[in-house]
Formats: sequence, C-alpha cells, structure tokens
Amino acid sequence: MAKADRQAMTTLSFNPPVRTLMGPGPSDVHPRILGALSRPTIGHLDPAFVGMMEETKALLQYAFQTRNELTMPVSAPGSAGMETCFVNLVEPGEKVIVCQNGVFGGRMKENVERCGATPIMVEDAWGRAVDPQKVEDALKANPDARVVAFVHAETSTGAQSDAETLVQIAHRHDCLTIVDAVTSLGGTPVKVDEWEIDAIYSGTQKCLSCTPGISPVSFNEQAQEKIRNRDHKVQSWFLDLNLVMGYWGSSQQRTYHHTAPVNALYGLHEALVMLQEEGVENAWARHRKNHVALKAGLEAMGLSFIVPESERLPQLNAVSIPEGIDDATVRRRLLDEFNLEIGAGLGALAGKVWRIGLMGHSSRAENILLCIAALETVLGDMGAPIQTGVALAAAEKSLQS
Amino acid sequence: MAKADRQAMTTLSFNPPVRTLMGPGPSDVHPRILGALSRPTIGHLDPAFVGMMEETKALLQYAFQTRNELTMPVSAPGSAGMETCFVNLVEPGEKVIVCQNGVFGGRMKENVERCGATPIMVEDAWGRAVDPQKVEDALKANPDARVVAFVHAETSTGAQSDAETLVQIAHRHDCLTIVDAVTSLGGTPVKVDEWEIDAIYSGTQKCLSCTPGISPVSFNEQAQEKIRNRDHKVQSWFLDLNLVMGYWGSSQQRTYHHTAPVNALYGLHEALVMLQEEGVENAWARHRKNHVALKAGLEAMGLSFIVPESERLPQLNAVSIPEGIDDATVRRRLLDEFNLEIGAGLGALAGKVWRIGLMGHSSRAENILLCIAALETVLGDMGAPIQTGVALAAAEKSLQS
Repeated sequence: MAKADRQAMTTLSFNPPVRTLMGPGPSDVHPRILGALSRPTIGHLDPAFVGMMEETKALLQYAFQTRNELTMPVSAPGSAGMETCFVNLVEPGEKVIVCQNGVFGGRMKENVERCGATPIMVEDAWGRAVDPQKVEDALKANPDARVVAFVHAETSTGAQSDAETLVQIAHRHDCLTIVDAVTSLGGTPVKVDEWEIDAIYSGTQKCLSCTPGISPVSFNEQAQEKIRNRDHKVQSWFLDLNLVMGYWGSSQQRTYHHTAPVNALYGLHEALVMLQEEGVENAWARHRKNHVALKAGLEAMGLSFIVPESERLPQLNAVSIPEGIDDATVRRRLLDEFNLEIGAGLGALAGKVWRIGLMGHSSRAENILLCIAALETVLGDMGAPIQTGVALAAAEKSLQS
Repeated sequence: MAKADRQAMTTLSFNPPVRTLMGPGPSDVHPRILGALSRPTIGHLDPAFVGMMEETKALLQYAFQTRNELTMPVSAPGSAGMETCFVNLVEPGEKVIVCQNGVFGGRMKENVERCGATPIMVEDAWGRAVDPQKVEDALKANPDARVVAFVHAETSTGAQSDAETLVQIAHRHDCLTIVDAVTSLGGTPVKVDEWEIDAIYSGTQKCLSCTPGISPVSFNEQAQEKIRNRDHKVQSWFLDLNLVMGYWGSSQQRTYHHTAPVNALYGLHEALVMLQEEGVENAWARHRKNHVALKAGLEAMGLSFIVPESERLPQLNAVSIPEGIDDATVRRRLLDEFNLEIGAGLGALAGKVWRIGLMGHSSRAENILLCIAALETVLGDMGAPIQTGVALAAAEKSLQS
C-alpha cells in the first residue's frame, strides 16, 4: 500500500450513539458491566485471573442452577456455544432429533449435518412451542437416534418450549439432550440439574445484560462421558472440550489452550455478580412483571402477540406489524428519533413482526414507557390502525399493581 | 440448587491487580483502548455500528498492507482465526504441507487432521526459522499438495521465518498459503499483497495492544475462489466464510449471521486507529529499536538468546534460563514483587526459556528498564551466575542512540 493511502486515511475514534436496546439482543448493558470491561488487562494465566475464572464457573453454575463441574464460558458468541455442544456430542453417522420452531432450530440442523450426522427434523409452526408428542413420535420412529436438540427460548419468535418434558422424553429413549438457552438464561427459569439437561449453551448479551461475545455452557456427567469416549476426534480444535478443559478444568494445573478474552470475561463476571446480588428467582420475577406491563400497553394500543399466551417468553415480545405499515420505516424512525432499537422479524417472519426485548438491564419500567410512547408516536404519525392515548396508562397501571 | 447455597455465595466484583505485561501476550493495553471497551453497547445491525465495521475493515487492510476485500475480524481468539483459515481452505482428502518450528505449527497439524486432510510435516528446530529448502523438497516429493501453511512469527520461540520466500515457493508448486501472523502483525513487517499471501490470521492481544478475543484475517481472490468452489461444506457453521461474509461483506446488504462482539470490536477499532496515527512503519521501527535496547541489557547481564540474530523477532525475546535457576520461582517473584509478567517456555522449551514480550504498548522504554531491573534484582538475589550493575546502563545507552 502506498504511503499516500495511509495519509489519506484519517479514521477517528468511534463514539457510538447512546441507544436503548429493546431488540433480541444485545440488551442494555449495565454501567457496572461496561466499567468492568475497561479494568486493566492481566495475563490469562495470572494467578489473579485464575481465581476469577473459578468464581465465574461457580457463578455460572448458579445461573444455570447446576452443580455440573463442566460449566464454563466459551470464548466466542452463542453460535460457537451451539457448535461446541454439537461437535463434542455428535459423532459422524449418528442420528439427531432436531426440533425446529424458528430460526435457531434450523441452525442446529446445519450443525448436525456439518458433523457428518443425520438430522431428523421435528417441525412446529414458528411462534409455537415444540410439541412433545411429535418428539416422542420421532423417537419411536428412530430408535437409533442418539441426541435430541431443541431451543428452549426461540429468539426468532418469542416462544418458550417445555424443556423439562422434552428432556424426560429424550431420556426415556436413551438420548442425550442439547438445549439452546441463549435467550432464557437469567430471564426465565432454567434448571439444568432439576430438569436433567445434558448439555446447554447460552449467550451473554441477552438476560445477563452483558456485552455479546461469550457463550456460557454446561455439560453433565453423561455428556462428559460421551465426549471422553468418542470414536472420532472432535472436528474443531478450538472447541474441543477435551482440550479446553485443560485450561478451564482445574485451577491446580491450568494449561494453555487459547488466550482467553480477558476483559470480556471481566464483564461476564460482573454481570454474574449482579445476577447473584439480585437473586436469579427475583430476576425471573422481574422479567415476568415487566412483560405483563409491556403487554398491557401494546395490547391497549391494539397490537397483538404472535405466540399463544401460555407459550410466550416474557423477555422477547413478538408482535404483528399492523396492516399497511412498513417495518423498516418504523424501526428506522424509532432509532433516529428516539435512539430506540427494537428487533425485526427473522426468516419467515421478516417484515411481519417486531421483536421487542425486555432482557436483563433492558427489563425496566422506564424502557417499557419509552417503547410504548415512541411506538405510539411513530405509528400514530404514520396513520396505523392503532388505539392512541390509552397504552401508557395501561402499562403504568400494570407496573404499579 | 438450594437457596442456602446462593445465600452462602457472596462473590464480589473483580478488581484485577495492575500488571506490566511482558509475556507472549496479552501485552499492555493502552488506556485509550480500555476506555473504548466501555463505550455504550449498540446493536450489531445498528447503522452506526455498520459504519464502524467498514472503518475496521479498512484499518485492518492497512495493518495487513492489503487491498483484499475479504479482510475482517473473526469474533473469537487467534486459535479460531487459525481454524477459520484451515476449515475454509482445506478439503477432506487433501495434502497440506505444514511447517513446524514451534508450538503453533503443531496446532496447524491438528487443524489439518481435523479437516480430514493429510499433513505433510516439514520440521525445523525450535528456535530456528523455517528452512525454505525443506519446503521446496517437501513440495517436490508431494506434487499433489494443495496448501502450504507456516508460522511467520513463532510465539513459542521468538523465531521469524521468511514469509515472502516461502509463499513464492508454494506458488511455484500451485499451492495456496496459510500464514500465522498472530505475533507479527503491527510489530514487524507483514505485507500481504507484496508477498502474495493467500490467507493470513492474527490476534489482537500482541502488537496491536488490544485485549485478547478477536482474530483479524485476510484472504485474497485465489483463496476466496477456492472457498466459493468447495466440494464439501465448511465443517464449521460459525467459521464458514461463505456465511460470515453475509454479515461482514457489504455494508449495503448486511444479514445476521452471529451477534458480533460489539464492545470488543470498539477496542480493536481504537487499537487500529492508534496504529494508523503512529504509522505502521513507525510501529515496526519502534519494536526494532526497543528490542535492541532490551537485548543490550539482557546480554550485558549475561543472558543469551535462543534464536540466531538474523531469525529473531524483535517483539518476542526468548532467552535461556541460567543454570540452576528455577523458572517458576523467578516468574512468581517478578509478579509478586514487581507486578511484572514475563512468559514461560512452551512445549519442548518449558522450564528452559523465558519469553519476554515487547509488543504493542508494552514496547516502551520504561518497560525495558523495569524488566531489566527486576530480573537483575531477582536473579541476583537467587545467586544466579549473572553480571550485575551493567545491564541498565547498556539498555539506556541503546535507547539514547
């Protein structure tokens, strides 16, 4: 590159706008967590860092409600957490039951195929929970299946499935389970030990209010046994838990595998300390209460949810876009006029729904009021068929109850 | 988990000690970069974020000295950058020439095998550069080889190989090249276009002075063509460049692949802005000058480098541990008494060498003096056979020349 090119280039420091994040994640990050990110970097083998790693593992066990030894953060986003579960637990040639009721079940299918295994798809409508009967039927039809994988909280639709029941069915058919809890962890009950989940992965940027980039995972003894006794090497060196555990496993003999994302882990540690301070049951209750208030406001305005009430995630609210209203215009105006981000529909739901997140630090009364007020303003201005002047009062009433 | 467990657990916020990082990475992170990490999180599809991504790509092109369109940061540490290159460029059944002169060539071998391909190993002594003649011989003996992979700057030994020559040889034999520049980028010349490197990966926590967790990569047109025309799907969904490029490729039509590590990318952007301000040639010169000063001090003390001078990396100084001196005790005392981290030997060199990094923001006069003073104090106190009272003056003289 010529010197002239360099001189012509004068990129300045990036100063992001201050947004309110009510999409499907990242959610608002608490200032304490942002502050933690900028603490001085230390070595990934420093004794002080090793102590923090041990605390992080214990805090993650609390978040996941598990005593699983193999509970740790993968050094990459939730998609890599998903891949960690599949490449370690699935062997070439195996059959895997994959439940699909949104985008992320489709990603699981991709993972299974890339492991050289065969996905047996169990399909449900987008916006509905996984139907346990269909899983039972698939297992009966495929007695050689080895793994059942499903999404606990479908980020693309806001539907929650009954993880406990699905795991019971899988176990009755001698299958291990892989559970996607990216959007549920910290927002709605996730009880790894009580529900006997074998392998689970999550993300940091949803109900844990942390920045994106890390994926907490947990594996029980049955899952570990399969990993230790694989016929084929795990196809990913970076995600091979047999190797990763040399670094994360025991604080006594920690060996270098890869360089941990030190400062990102400061952030996760702080987020988990905050979850512990609040109490995970209180966090679940807060997400529930705030969802009810947002729902009161949105429904008073005339918007309708796409997921039946009993299957709805409190932290991710998918509502239909009113007839004749352009999705992108509304989202752009919310962003430009109010610095408010809400989520678009994904895949089959693109252009048809908005996804309004109330996750982690975003799950607050002030965000609910802002969202309702801003939506009402923009939709009203665009002539949408909504009810005006009643939504805020409905939400406030719910918040005060 | 019982409520009692939660109440018994009271983990506090983590406040790391303030260290001087002179190991093999992470290196000292400049306060500007730490500050950037804590800027407000915005969405990974926010127009403001998309603008920052475009700038980051241009800044990375500058750092890599390339016009390659496909130049971007992988959302995970350097090991994942390595894996990105191998899983995208290597197909099952292929032969890959892998040069090994330290730990990371061994990791490349693991990657090749896990891609279902056959590594043809070209071995050189640890602490020496890759011998071009051996690569030529291996290519002649294996005319069906498709890829040549080597480490430009071996972090485990401090040896630098002649990337330009190795790439020329590979191209004469119709092979693509994969180059590990984890420790070289920003510290010593890396000229992707001039040297015609096909695929290259690096890390953020070395000479870019950023926090660990991100891996910059770049691929030329020949490499991209191979990726587009693969017979087999890339085995990793997370690292499949055919998919990743939907997000990083064009700012016009950015589609969701995974959630980018937003704040970590703020840090990388700031680090690259700082590299641009300094000028990459000036950064190379600074690393060179400071290496010479550290070397003057260490040699005056009587320590000797394991890599021959002409093959030595200025940013990673591997010196032999004096006879009768316990490695771990010295490193622990440096850390406890002076908050100074230097690196241990890896693999075959464990217990035999120290690796002293002068990378990025760590490559400063004050760090050189601290390191020499602290080493002399601790080694002198332990009765090591070193020369005392001369090293600081030797380093200072070099710094002032």
